[in-house]
Order: sequence, then C-alpha cells, then structure tokens
Amino acid sequence: MNDQYPDTVTIDASEGTRAFSLDRAHVFHSWSAQGALAPWVPAGGLGTTIWDYEGKRYLDFSSQLVNTNIGHQHPAVVAAIKAQADVMTTIAPAHANIVRGEAASRILERAGGHFSKVFFTNGGADANENAIRMARLVTGRDKVLSTYRSYHGNTGAAVVATGDWRRVPNEYARGHVHFFGPFLYRSEFWATTPEQESERALHHLERVIQAEGPQSIAAILIETIPGTAGVLVPPPGYLAGVRALADAYGIVLIFDEVMCGFGRTGEWFSFVTPAATGGERVQPDLVTFAKGVNSGYVPAGGVIISDSIANAFDEEVFPGGLTYSGHPLAMAAIVGTLDAMADEGIVDNARMIGERHLGPGLRALAERHPLIGEVRGVGVFWALDLVADPVTREPVSPAIIGRLKKELMARGLLPFSADNRIHVVPPCVVTPDEVAAALAIYDEAFTAVEA
Amino acid sequence: MNDQYPDTVTIDASEGTRAFSLDRAHVFHSWSAQGALAPWVPAGGLGTTIWDYEGKRYLDFSSQLVNTNIGHQHPAVVAAIKAQADVMTTIAPAHANIVRGEAASRILERAGGHFSKVFFTNGGADANENAIRMARLVTGRDKVLSTYRSYHGNTGAAVVATGDWRRVPNEYARGHVHFFGPFLYRSEFWATTPEQESERALHHLERVIQAEGPQSIAAILIETIPGTAGVLVPPPGYLAGVRALADAYGIVLIFDEVMCGFGRTGEWFSFVTPAATGGERVQPDLVTFAKGVNSGYVPAGGVIISDSIANAFDEEVFPGGLTYSGHPLAMAAIVGTLDAMADEGIVDNARMIGERHLGPGLRALAERHPLIGEVRGVGVFWALDLVADPVTREPVSPAIIGRLKKELMARGLLPFSADNRIHVVPPCVVTPDEVAAALAIYDEAFTAVEA
Ligand SMILES: Cc1ncc(COP(=O)(O)O)c(C=O)c1O
Ligand SMILES: Cc1ncc(COP(=O)(O)O)c(C=O)c1O
Repeated sequence: MNDQYPDTVTIDASEGTRAFSLDRAHVFHSWSAQGALAPWVPAGGLGTTIWDYEGKRYLDFSSQLVNTNIGHQHPAVVAAIKAQADVMTTIAPAHANIVRGEAASRILERAGGHFSKVFFTNGGADANENAIRMARLVTGRDKVLSTYRSYHGNTGAAVVATGDWRRVPNEYARGHVHFFGPFLYRSEFWATTPEQESERALHHLERVIQAEGPQSIAAILIETIPGTAGVLVPPPGYLAGVRALADAYGIVLIFDEVMCGFGRTGEWFSFVTPAATGGERVQPDLVTFAKGVNSGYVPAGGVIISDSIANAFDEEVFPGGLTYSGHPLAMAAIVGTLDAMADEGIVDNARMIGERHLGPGLRALAERHPLIGEVRGVGVFWALDLVADPVTREPVSPAIIGRLKKELMARGLLPFSADNRIHVVPPCVVTPDEVAAALAIYDEAFTAVEA
Repeated sequence: MNDQYPDTVTIDASEGTRAFSLDRAHVFHSWSAQGALAPWVPAGGLGTTIWDYEGKRYLDFSSQLVNTNIGHQHPAVVAAIKAQADVMTTIAPAHANIVRGEAASRILERAGGHFSKVFFTNGGADANENAIRMARLVTGRDKVLSTYRSYHGNTGAAVVATGDWRRVPNEYARGHVHFFGPFLYRSEFWATTPEQESERALHHLERVIQAEGPQSIAAILIETIPGTAGVLVPPPGYLAGVRALADAYGIVLIFDEVMCGFGRTGEWFSFVTPAATGGERVQPDLVTFAKGVNSGYVPAGGVIISDSIANAFDEEVFPGGLTYSGHPLAMAAIVGTLDAMADEGIVDNARMIGERHLGPGLRALAERHPLIGEVRGVGVFWALDLVADPVTREPVSPAIIGRLKKELMARGLLPFSADNRIHVVPPCVVTPDEVAAALAIYDEAFTAVEA
C-alpha cells in the first residue's frame, strides 16, 4: 500500500459534508432510485488506495467502474493531462491534431494485426454505436446479434430524434436480436464440460443466425470476456468458432473490449489473451474500447477499425460523429497511460498478479467459504459467483451482497458488486502485498456474513 | 486580437507535418468520406485567435463546433483543470464528489425556475438520450416529436444491443416522428409574416400531435434556437405556444440547448433570450446542454431536470447511466468556465457584440452582397443564408461555399459552414476590434467570390 498521500493532500472534513449535501440536493444518479441514496464520499486516491474525508484508507478493488487500470492519480498521466492543458484543451474533430495521431498510432501498435484506423468517441456506449453503424453500412444489413449477458452502453435514440440528413442513414426499424453466450457454471445448453459448452453455444448461435436470416445480420457484437455479466471467460474454441461463423455468413465481428481491454486480462486485449482464446488467433473486424485506454482520467473511447472496413469509407461518407471525437486532453491521457503502462510493465504485472496471487488466493478463499460457488477470471479481472446452495447454485439474495459490501467497506476495501457477485477488479498496478491484504479482508468479511 | 501567443508557445513546423501524416494514416473522421480528406492543422489558440504551424493566425469565427464560448485556452479554466488533475482525475458516478455538486449548483443557479437536479453526461448526444429516457418513463408513452431541421446527436443503438436488464426499459419499437418548425425565410406554411409563421407552425404541430395520438407522445424535443440547421430564431409566440401544446396534451417539453445555451445568445440560456421567446416566460421540463457549459475543454454534457421529473425518480429506478457521468475534470472545467463567464461579464459581452457590432455589421454586409439572402441571429450566434437568386431564394451550390471558405482561410478567418450557409459564431469573448477585422474579411471574401 502506498504511504505517500498524507504528504500530498490535506483532508478537509467539512468539504466532505458539503460534497454529500450538494450531491443529495442537485446530482441525479445513474441506474438508481434517487430518494434513498447515500453515496460514499471519497476525498482522494493514489495507486490502489483511495481515502475518505475522515482519512480512512481503502483498497480500491473496484477500479471504480473497472476503469482505473493504471490506478488512481498516476503521476505520468496527470502530468500528460496538465501539459496538454497548457497547449490545447480542445479542437474540432475535423482538424488534425498531433496528440490524436499519437494516441491512434499507440493503440494500433498494441492491437497489431490488420487494423489501420481509430475512430475516437467519449466513452464505451458511443464506441459501440459507431461500430454498429460501420457494420450496418458495410454490409447493407441491419440486425445486430448480441448476448443476453452483456452490457454495451446506455444510448439508443438521439440520432433517430435528429431531423436532418444524419438521421436517414441511421434509421433502422428492426435491429436487435439477443442470443445466449457460453457460461458453463449456469449453462443454457445442459453442458457439463467446457468443450461441450463451447460447441453447443456455437450451435445455438448458428441456429439463431439461420433462423433470423443471415442476409439480415450486419454484426455479431460480443464482449470478448463479458464483464458486468460476471467475468464470463469463454470456453476454448468459442471465440474462434464465432469468427468462423461470422466469416461463413458474411457478418462483421465486433469485440467490445471496453471493460476487458487495455491490461485488465494481463494482455493489451482480451482477444489475444490465451485464457479467452485458448491460444488460437482470433481477429475481430472492429474492436471497441474506452475505460482502460486512459483509465478514464479524461472521458474517451473509440473503435479500432480493420483495413477493409476503413477502406470501405474512403469514398463513401461515414454518417456518424460527435463534437469531442479525438479530444486533445483525452488523447494526451491515452498517450500518457499507454506509455506508462508499457514503460512500467503494468500489463505484465496484471498477468503475474492473476497467475500467482489473485487466482490462487481467490480459489483458496472459495475453499474456505461455501458462499462462493465459482471463481472465474484472469489477470486482474475476477468474479466470485455467490450461491445460497452449492448444489442448486441458487444465487444469494441482494441482502447478502449488501451485508458483504458493508463488511468489506468497514475493513477498508472498496468492493465492486453486480447481481449475486463480487467482482475482484483492482487496478493493474496492484502489488502482491495489496492482494494479500485484500484477500485477508475478503476472508474476514465472508466469515462475518456467514456467522 | 491577442498578441500574447508568441511568448507562450513555440511552433515546431515538423510537428505540424507529423500531425498531418499521423492523422491521414490512422485517424478515422466523422461525417466524411476518408479518402480525400486534407484536414487543417492548428498549432494553438488563445481567445478568439488560433494559429497554424506556419505561425499564421486566424480569427476563429467557428468556435470549433460552436463550443469554445469562452475562447481558446482561457487561463482560469486551464488552471481549474490542472488543479483538479492534481487532486482527483476520475471517480465513479455512484460516489459523491465535491466538484460535481459545485458544477450542478452553478448550472441550476443559472437555469433558475423550477429546476432542481442535473444528470451529467459526456456530450450532447447522451444528454438528449437521457432526457428522452426520462420523458418516456414519466409519461409511460414512447413517441418523441422533433423537427426535421434539427440535430440532436449521433447515438441510437447501444442500449438496445445491450443484453442485460438495462435494455428492457429502453426498448421502444416505435418512436420518432418529425415535424416542421417555423422558418419564415423558407416557410413550409406559405406564411409571409413572423406572426403568421408562428401561428401556422403551431397549428401544424398540434395537427401532428392529434394525428399521431397524444396518448402516444412522451416528448417534444426541440432546439430552442435550431443551430446547425441555420440559427433559426423562432418567431414571437412560438415557444410559448409549444409550451401550451405540451401542457394541453400532457407531453414533456425538452429544449436542446447544447449549441444555443451558456452564453451563445447573450444570455445563459436561449429559453430566456427575448429574441427567441418574444419576452414571454417559457419553462421547459428538461434542458439538455454540453458545448458552452465548459467550452468543451473536457467532454461534458447533461440534463437539467425540473423538480417534478426529478421527484418522479425518487422511488422509481432511473435506468440510464454512463461510466463518466459527472467526471471530476469535466466538472472542474464547468466550475472554472461558469465562474469566469460570470466574473468577466462574458455573457453580457456576447449580447453587446450581437446588438452593437455583429448584428448591424452583418446586415450592412448583406446590403453590399446579393449572395446573402438573409441574416439571422442573436448574440454571437448568426447565419448568413446564401442564395443563387434573391427572389427564388435558391440555395447557392456547395462549390460557392467551398470557394468562400478558401477565401476566408486565406485572409485569416476560420469559418463555419453548413449546407448553403456561413455561420458567424465566434467565442462570446470576441472584441469589437476582432468583429471589425472579421467583417472586413467576410466583405473581401464575398467580393472575391462574386468576381
Ligand atoms: C463492455 C462494456 N461496453 C460498453 C460500456 C459502456 O461504456 P460507457 O459507460 O463509457 O458508455 C461498458 C460500461 O461499463 C462496458 O462494460
Ligand atoms: C443542438 C445539438 N444537440 C446535440 C448535439 C450533439 O452533441 P455531441 O456532438 O456532443 O454529441 C449537437 C452537436 O452539434 C447540437 O448542436
């Protein structure tokens, strides 16, 4: 854990009180009923540590919304943002800009393969919007297939509300079909082995493609490793199988790496992470990203575009855009983040942490606590699937999750929860000592809740 | 014009070359065919001035995408961003945060009336997304009425691609109906006076409401002053009439002030700008904003929410959200911008410039140049509607606009064009001398094109 914070910040408790009351009075919150909210009020953070206005310190094992891959307040990224702020804070996307080009080239370098261009957005939702738009336009088809266990963002109406010409190429009366992805622990396919789950999930996907009509399907959009849905690392052969289906039916394959990209799995991308690919080479046509690309220090996202799709828009107009595409401050934060991650071996650290510390540690935890039905993950991207009954695998109630979160906070760990799960998602910079401290806290908290 | 830039920046021409080639190689551009793009490469800016890598200076009469209301590199806003970067760059929306509360309270103070909360987004598109979502949920209806001459953002699919529960409350099979707003110069209603245009446009809107079925209509979404569509200042009585129709039929009224808000009209909002309201009090239920709120120094947008709509979500869950809602750096830029705009009388400056300099100057320009069919606007928000024939009002060809832009750039003015129009949209900080210089450049450029 980091001991630097008391030198660099002073904590003013009255500011915490004011932050809370201003929030309750004036801030409308995401995904919530507003009445009973009592938000936590952090005062600052550094690396994996975050503290409140009482000076109490927490291990941030949420990475906020699984975005601070480089940790809080990485000095190189903060410096890059400040330096850019002095030069040029904002510029229209139509003009060229050095830091935007530098950010694009660093992203493409890491993506490798057949990618040649990047379209920048403000976050993950609009990254997927624009990937879907590209797929629809290059195929001349409209439907998008995605899984039920997925999250791709919150947008769905602004361009259809738009009245001018930009609406017309974006009006799709039909559009979205959902299928089941592989998830052996809660299989939809009566499978009992990873191989069987993979085969059956591919069979199911092919049947959906056939039943919907391949000629109507523009894209298959999947999270390479579904994140919010529970860190569902695909079984061997699944991703390669999806690629083969997309090829067979002329469908654009989009991997959403908003949460699982840029170091989270111990690789730059999940589509090159052996745990997800089974070691096979799987190249999507489009990759969407946000979060980890600059740890969310400045809002940014985007689409990594293959040569052939990029070239399809050399003559044809691409009818999508946004005011802050390639925003200089966001781009500077990308350059600062990706350079620091490379220089400091941060992605390698995430892999090492997963292999040697988090993976073994969480599996040992599960052996001690019957509440933990399954441990899934890779790198610094893990989920504990909590069950009321290990045989039926019935999910625990929201009350159990609520109590666990309270016990974890009380012991100085900021958790991430979703449905019946605790996601263990620290920054990629987390140290073995911090993991050990966190594992001890999880252990105590589970013991307290089980009592 | 500002003479400070040579002291604060050094211009490295080779960086300009590199910026251009990286852009062409790797950056995918909005709303364009990619093949023949040759983007301009700015090196820096200050106030109303922007310069390239040859050291040539331009008056920025585009405000980029009509967003740098406070001008380029305002020192107080740059300082606010840098100070926040040192404390906390990013934090999840669920946690409370002092600067987010401060930003919300400053926005609400300026909005006045019956507004009590702000939901923050990354830009204008997702602001409209969330306003539409609120309207649909509070009314239990789905259709959204908006005008053909409008732009509300580029998003339309991510939430329907999402598979988890967040999709279900956001799936609308039907949804978007477009109508004609008032625009006397190119009337859709055979009107010859502003009063007649207003009355007939309201009659048309009421007929569309009746024909679509009022019970199906959640929202009327209009730009208070349509911007990209041509700075279409509504005729007297129109906005109050729309408010009355919304009330009569139980429809939520959303004003999109993404472009026309935060100083552009010489007031904090267009819905309190006498030129737009005819001096009547018109209160929308929701106001969407972005751009001018922090001049785009950090991507931000949001929805200003009336008491009654905010309260409707005290018990009911609001099913929308995004990773960077209320992002601290963006919030710090809002606080810095709104304070500086108030302290330095920047909104008053925009009003004064419109009344005394830009308005009279552009009207005088129109008298000298038959290409200019109509001059419309208020504050620092103006359009020149260019016509091939003043009688038929036939729009000029794209070639004329292209030549005008070249002549303007050659003379040191960065223009904004849309369709057959030149929009005259400098920052709110523009000085009388800068306006005089710009008017001389427009005059010469029109003369050159007419020759
Ligand atoms: C996989 C995935 N895609 C897209 C998004 C949406 O990103 P944003 O919240 O930046 O719009 C998220 C957010 O959690 C995500 O996890
Ligand atoms: C009136 C209006 N609404 C919404 C938008 C979309 O904003 P953004 O580009 O930030 O998504 C714009 C952008 O120009 C706009 O002018």
